[in-house]
Amino acid sequence: MGGTVQVALGGNLIVTRAPVLAIDIGGTKLAAGLVDTEGQLLRQARVPTPADDPWAGLSRLVAELMDSDGLAGVADGLSGVGVGCGGPMRWPEAEVSPLNIPAWRGFPLRRWLGEMFGGLPVRVHNDAICMAIGEHWLGAGAGARSLLGMVVSTGVGGGLVLDGHLYSGPTGNAGHVGHLAAELGPDAPLCGCGARGCLETVARGPALVEWARARGWDGPDGVALAAAARAGDPVAGEAFERAGSAIGRVVAGVAALLDLDRVVVGGGIAQAGDLLFDPLQAAFRRHLRVDFGERTTVERAALGPEAGLIGAAALVLAGDRYWPPGTDPND
Amino acid sequence: MGGTVQVALGGNLIVTRAPVLAIDIGGTKLAAGLVDTEGQLLRQARVPTPADDPWAGLSRLVAELMDSDGLAGVADGLSGVGVGCGGPMRWPEAEVSPLNIPAWRGFPLRRWLGEMFGGLPVRVHNDAICMAIGEHWLGAGAGARSLLGMVVSTGVGGGLVLDGHLYSGPTGNAGHVGHLAAELGPDAPLCGCGARGCLETVARGPALVEWARARGWDGPDGVALAAAARAGDPVAGEAFERAGSAIGRVVAGVAALLDLDRVVVGGGIAQAGDLLFDPLQAAFRRHLRVDFGERTTVERAALGPEAGLIGAAALVLAGDRYWPPGTDPND
Repeated sequence: MGGTVQVALGGNLIVTRAPVLAIDIGGTKLAAGLVDTEGQLLRQARVPTPADDPWAGLSRLVAELMDSDGLAGVADGLSGVGVGCGGPMRWPEAEVSPLNIPAWRGFPLRRWLGEMFGGLPVRVHNDAICMAIGEHWLGAGAGARSLLGMVVSTGVGGGLVLDGHLYSGPTGNAGHVGHLAAELGPDAPLCGCGARGCLETVARGPALVEWARARGWDGPDGVALAAAARAGDPVAGEAFERAGSAIGRVVAGVAALLDLDRVVVGGGIAQAGDLLFDPLQAAFRRHLRVDFGERTTVERAALGPEAGLIGAAALVLAGDRYWPPGTDPND
Repeated sequence: MGGTVQVALGGNLIVTRAPVLAIDIGGTKLAAGLVDTEGQLLRQARVPTPADDPWAGLSRLVAELMDSDGLAGVADGLSGVGVGCGGPMRWPEAEVSPLNIPAWRGFPLRRWLGEMFGGLPVRVHNDAICMAIGEHWLGAGAGARSLLGMVVSTGVGGGLVLDGHLYSGPTGNAGHVGHLAAELGPDAPLCGCGARGCLETVARGPALVEWARARGWDGPDGVALAAAARAGDPVAGEAFERAGSAIGRVVAGVAALLDLDRVVVGGGIAQAGDLLFDPLQAAFRRHLRVDFGERTTVERAALGPEAGLIGAAALVLAGDRYWPPGTDPND
């Protein structure tokens, strides 16, 4: 029965809307899960992203999740497929060229998934947008009319829910908060985008590590940097202070521009907790002084690494809020 | 006939939708005009804003425009009233407290206008938002799906049209582009909002004049500063260079964040033309390097000082795009 499932409940057999297959495609790992209409993650599976053939890895992951020997009949009992994938991509077609998956350049992800799941709706969006949607649907952003959801990780990305609805922008690229300027002048650090001083050059995980190493800290990664900061290493502490202050200053400006109710910050670097959030909150309050910003708050993401899967599912399950009308392939 | 008028056309009498009364309320002048359904300004009148009693001045201006001895019957032949007014205000109630009109603090502008024009729809929004709407409806922003319209004048304000519709924000304050950070550090100039380094502290007209005076230029105002820059005064030239670069850098970040098609810049300081726009365009291109920003352009406002009146009229005449559903007083 396409789109519905039969469930035994208290001795009665009821017919309900079927769960959604949610997929989260990143440069280091692939995740897939079954999400029910309430947003509960029923089960999930993860594998490292195979550099040579990501599609084969994704196919195996889906088969494993669906407890199937292969992909035949895998669409049965699903109401749709929602996918978060690293950008850039042509959207809504979802021809994807994820920065961290060199094997995919202009890869027609939605078309291939549409063929795998013949007839089911397949909706693909940027992975940071899915995180923002997930947090707005069921996490720290719930109830906010206007929200910036932000991911601070290997990169700095985000998604915008404005007046209760996802704002994707004309090309599907709205939410790129990492390219607002955080440092000025000709010596500001060069960003991957080609500009100087973007927030991403200050706040992405590798930038914190690099900044601390250039000042004598000697460790492998952001996790070690957070541990060092917690143990009292002043350079490590200053790295988080600098990143948090830059994020707070930039999102204060965004909150004024968009009259935001709330900003939610997640991602690997946000795991550092107070190390990042104390300077972030201080800078946010220092820079957001317009009266209508008094109600605006910054919150830590609540859904953890599953936000991406839950948000991907929401593209289908709560499409009235999180998927713009007229952007499905057969519309 | 409320909302319609009879027009003689080629020997036939036709009934058409009546024009809108548009009002633009600023700290130095009050303007009012009649705008037809095509956005043509049929006639207009202006007076200096009386500091002691702005409401009396506004009433006289409306009576003069409507060619009436008083306000009796002034609503006849109108289909509504659209108003742009300096902020801040409680919106959509339009209890206004314009920074530059100290006599009005929490003044119930919409209610009083509603009583003056009994029964007609009265819609009030921020004056910078009206400018942005006017430029999107009939000016340099026409056809853009997503637009920032910006006013660089005594202050720096703006309005956002996203996916073809005005985005007002939960409290009606979206578009405040003047409070994104343009200068960093504890010595950055203090903004009227209480924060340091806001774009407004660098790009508002009085800031340019003050900056140039602190470096030895000796003149009265922004118009003189532009003339000096054009005559080759290096300090005057650098004042516009500095403001244009700051605007370009900030709006590049906004264009990435909101996936904008276009930015339109108007207001008194924008009258300086190339002096402002050359460094603005250069900084914009230098800072907007994401691939989806290649199509994004910055344009000069096209409607001149009448943009505010035309945009105010559009609140009523094109309310499906420029007035959020459910925000009229009797909804």
